[in-house]
Amino acid sequence: MGDVDRRRALAQQFRVDSVRCAAAAKSGHPTSGMSAADLMAVLVDGYLHYDFDNPDAPTNDRLIFSKGHASTLLYAIFRAAGAISDEELLTYRQYGSMLEGHPTPLIPWVDVATGSLGQGLPFGVGMALAGKRLDRLPYRIWVLCGDSEMAEGSMWEAFEHAAFYELDNLTAIIDVNRLGQRGETMHGWDLSSYTRRAESYGWAVIEIDGHDLDAIDRAYEEATSIDRRPTVIVARTIKGKGVKEVENKEGWHGKPLDDPDAAIAELGGITNLVIEVAKPDPGEPHRFETTGLELPRYEVGSEVATRKAYGEALSAVGAARGDVVALDGEVGNSTFAEIFGKAHPDRYFEMYIAEQQMVAAAVGLQARNYKPFGSTFAAFLSRAYDFVRMAAISRATLYLAGSHAGISIGEDGPSQMALEDIASMRAVHGSTVLHPCDGNQTAKLVAGMPDLTGIVFLRTLRPNTPVIYGADEEFPIGGSRVLRSSEEDEVTLVGCGVTVHEALKAADALAGEGITARVIDCYSLKPIDGATLADAAEATGRIVTAEDHWPEGGLGEAVLAALASAEAQAHVVRLAVTEMPRSGKPEQLLSVAGIDAQGIAATARRLVRTQVTAS
Amino acid sequence: MGDVDRRRALAQQFRVDSVRCAAAAKSGHPTSGMSAADLMAVLVDGYLHYDFDNPDAPTNDRLIFSKGHASTLLYAIFRAAGAISDEELLTYRQYGSMLEGHPTPLIPWVDVATGSLGQGLPFGVGMALAGKRLDRLPYRIWVLCGDSEMAEGSMWEAFEHAAFYELDNLTAIIDVNRLGQRGETMHGWDLSSYTRRAESYGWAVIEIDGHDLDAIDRAYEEATSIDRRPTVIVARTIKGKGVKEVENKEGWHGKPLDDPDAAIAELGGITNLVIEVAKPDPGEPHRFETTGLELPRYEVGSEVATRKAYGEALSAVGAARGDVVALDGEVGNSTFAEIFGKAHPDRYFEMYIAEQQMVAAAVGLQARNYKPFGSTFAAFLSRAYDFVRMAAISRATLYLAGSHAGISIGEDGPSQMALEDIASMRAVHGSTVLHPCDGNQTAKLVAGMPDLTGIVFLRTLRPNTPVIYGADEEFPIGGSRVLRSSEEDEVTLVGCGVTVHEALKAADALAGEGITARVIDCYSLKPIDGATLADAAEATGRIVTAEDHWPEGGLGEAVLAALASAEAQAHVVRLAVTEMPRSGKPEQLLSVAGIDAQGIAATARRLVRTQVTAS
Repeated sequence: MGDVDRRRALAQQFRVDSVRCAAAAKSGHPTSGMSAADLMAVLVDGYLHYDFDNPDAPTNDRLIFSKGHASTLLYAIFRAAGAISDEELLTYRQYGSMLEGHPTPLIPWVDVATGSLGQGLPFGVGMALAGKRLDRLPYRIWVLCGDSEMAEGSMWEAFEHAAFYELDNLTAIIDVNRLGQRGETMHGWDLSSYTRRAESYGWAVIEIDGHDLDAIDRAYEEATSIDRRPTVIVARTIKGKGVKEVENKEGWHGKPLDDPDAAIAELGGITNLVIEVAKPDPGEPHRFETTGLELPRYEVGSEVATRKAYGEALSAVGAARGDVVALDGEVGNSTFAEIFGKAHPDRYFEMYIAEQQMVAAAVGLQARNYKPFGSTFAAFLSRAYDFVRMAAISRATLYLAGSHAGISIGEDGPSQMALEDIASMRAVHGSTVLHPCDGNQTAKLVAGMPDLTGIVFLRTLRPNTPVIYGADEEFPIGGSRVLRSSEEDEVTLVGCGVTVHEALKAADALAGEGITARVIDCYSLKPIDGATLADAAEATGRIVTAEDHWPEGGLGEAVLAALASAEAQAHVVRLAVTEMPRSGKPEQLLSVAGIDAQGIAATARRLVRTQVTAS
Repeated sequence: MGDVDRRRALAQQFRVDSVRCAAAAKSGHPTSGMSAADLMAVLVDGYLHYDFDNPDAPTNDRLIFSKGHASTLLYAIFRAAGAISDEELLTYRQYGSMLEGHPTPLIPWVDVATGSLGQGLPFGVGMALAGKRLDRLPYRIWVLCGDSEMAEGSMWEAFEHAAFYELDNLTAIIDVNRLGQRGETMHGWDLSSYTRRAESYGWAVIEIDGHDLDAIDRAYEEATSIDRRPTVIVARTIKGKGVKEVENKEGWHGKPLDDPDAAIAELGGITNLVIEVAKPDPGEPHRFETTGLELPRYEVGSEVATRKAYGEALSAVGAARGDVVALDGEVGNSTFAEIFGKAHPDRYFEMYIAEQQMVAAAVGLQARNYKPFGSTFAAFLSRAYDFVRMAAISRATLYLAGSHAGISIGEDGPSQMALEDIASMRAVHGSTVLHPCDGNQTAKLVAGMPDLTGIVFLRTLRPNTPVIYGADEEFPIGGSRVLRSSEEDEVTLVGCGVTVHEALKAADALAGEGITARVIDCYSLKPIDGATLADAAEATGRIVTAEDHWPEGGLGEAVLAALASAEAQAHVVRLAVTEMPRSGKPEQLLSVAGIDAQGIAATARRLVRTQVTAS
């Protein structure tokens, strides 16, 4: 069988398998797989280099289905490649099967979860960066994109960055099947609308009929030969191609076919073609030279901003570990990621003001075994929240540092103040949420971060804060620090970040009035130190939490949840930012919000005195 | 004084005032205002139509500083227009001043808060849509954009949608001053990079020297004459223009000048020019015809998905209120927003898969007094989280409906499951979070939504659920429904959405074992019905919460917070989704997560029996 005949047969098999999967599951998106079947048949038969027996091989190409709903097509490829059996293919979408509705890395040959549209290509940018700049290996990243998802701005962030970084190892394939979920896309079959945009960003563009196997072949050939520019293949296709009942018809998105047997017959019946996907040449990734770890050390009693300590510590960690890389959203002089950038320019990526692409690139980099630290103002990580959510589904390990937390930033005003970041980051599956209050604590937490898995969020402060911990102290994840404690404690003050210092001052003030207060630095918000909090509840019966954050989902609720889990009872009063903050001096704003020393002390005093009176 | 001389003097005054503001505040971004001073001088002197005495005038043009950090320039305009005094100008960034670090609608002449970059232009798209499609008035939207923020994908979502909707009443002005916060932007002074992109999206583009007053004038003249296309003026400017010490130099972003007096002298000294900004012709917005409100009514015992009830109720509300408009992210056949779209096509906006632009357009529409309902899968609202956060700072009132909540969606898998939406939406200032469990409850909540202010989030379900409430029952915001209650209640089961039905089944099962359970439908998660929960805590001492959401920041923590605020004590066990869900049937997934009737009953049983044994 010649190339074209074999590929034609393979594409039909992919279509048949898409129909079969959806029929077995009684759900799924077979028509979305059918449009791209020819594109993928030529790719896996002629261009993809991938060792299915060794998905971790460093020289493997990477194939990303940015249109993750076309998963039946991807799984059909796996069957044709001999990676899964026909029986396993038909477990599609059944409970316990790794072949879920949208691909996730539960599957050994999938690196990143997709299904939220507009993310696969940005992830691919991260992998392509790894290939060109870090691994320095000739593997190629192939990304199958849907036409509907081109409406997501994140796709154009990817176009921008891929061109800027000259990622000629990246090929995007847009499956322009004209039909979105509810009808025609904005541009239908006007391929030129995609072409014009892609060219304007500096990409090489090849327009083809996505069902013309020769044209597809020539397009891949050309794409692999273009230097210093990424390539996009804009392919006109027909949704549901091959089955007249559904071809190019509205109303068939995300639905199994009415008569799968007839459709399979129309497509030529079930076949069992096996393809030998070309294996890549062997190769090993570049290794960056390292030295020992010399963390910054701050003198107790001096002052430093935790964001500055972040930058200095990260730079030190980067010297000790060649797998640590950093990305920043054009605010490296504020997050202090620039310190890493100056020390390790080969491992620093300026992502400009494109937080979605920054987080997505981190996801791609970690899929290539790097330890990415991404930073911007914590408020602006909210821009990439869907990417963080999906990163958890990718079972990704990455490190996000959000600076300028809370109202303590002062004059810049509420748009720059992260006040929802603890809540949103706690609500990411498997996340770790850390909020240090001083320089040495920050340095130690940063040093430990690369050993953590999952999404790790470190919240740092704009203003300088006093150094209260020695440089050799340890801060385990899930721990806390009891800063003041005695057997007479009548109330516990719990803070994190800037409010730790306010709580300490409050305790001093209370001590002057004869009220002894326990003070806990809850630097690890998730996991949280339930045992220490439960001890405090039992010992003092009264707890005041204070946080530079909205009341919902932050420190206060985390403490309540920890106490509930420990079955500990206490009278808990939560202080937080409850009114929309204004511009002003940090100390003014902390005072107005009632989370400064005076506010904390007043609440503690009321709590102690009221209950004494009541008893 | 001729036009050019007057405008030159005005621009210098704007620069001087920018320097003065930052000097007084000891912070701010004077150099970012100085680059755009000429652009704004010509605009306000020759093209803006705005009645500063009547900012609500329906025919006023709208001026948005998408580069919100250039606020000193905006405030300088206000002074020149006689809207604020010199004394007030110098309150910039001081606590209590409305002239905050970044503009907010605390200022009568500001419609939307900016400061998170990449948002002003998308807001402008919403306002321009209002002008063309709803108000049908000839006002114009002017948006001053920074060059750095062009890296945000959201800007290109705005380009895409503005062209698609032929918004020739929208003019963007890109202040290409070459320098971002930490150095040069990706494209520096390569104006053509912006021009190529904008043209590829179908905009009219005019490249100019942004300090050439004649060229600026011609550009505005041309922009106001172009039909059916939005226009972008790409202006080459110099950051810090007019003061040699800082002109076009790195390291001067977001900093007051070292020697403001010398800079003011170099700029020509303090002046007090007053401009007569042209007032718009009077006019009244179009009114849409309305009829009475006829909400859908579902028969008790029948089944309907709450997302379907949302669409039907919204359509009914739209018939009764001409100010209600709807937007959807290309999933209107899943969210059922399409029912509204078919009934009220003039007030329905397809935003394709661009959730950021969808929410931003809603912000713009509400600034023009409409009541926008934006819908997509709740999981994908996470894409627009920064826009929701900023909408709260805009003091915006808008309604977001997120469908396909939680694992009850089943086979599509985790990428489509909202499991962090309650947490993230609760942590938005002033938000309301609602999660109905049946069709009639949904309809009543939707009917009441247009009377609420702030960000209102309604979470709806994919699967059908039983109708348990009569069509005439009322569901006040901040309320709950006690579905089972007796004096012998030993435990309280609290659910919302799908878990209400599971809790009811659990109560039935427990009743068969002689355990009487109170059941509360906590449909209003924020504000939450603390009094009813406190009563239940007192009456039963034991509470089981069950939610189709991660454990953090959702129903369980909201209940704990409500109890803590009410100083009520109970043994609370929170059931939630704790492991990354898989594809599977909804009932399988609910069971595996332990939030189905069996899981709830088992926990309640253990709680009752353990404590009975212990006492």
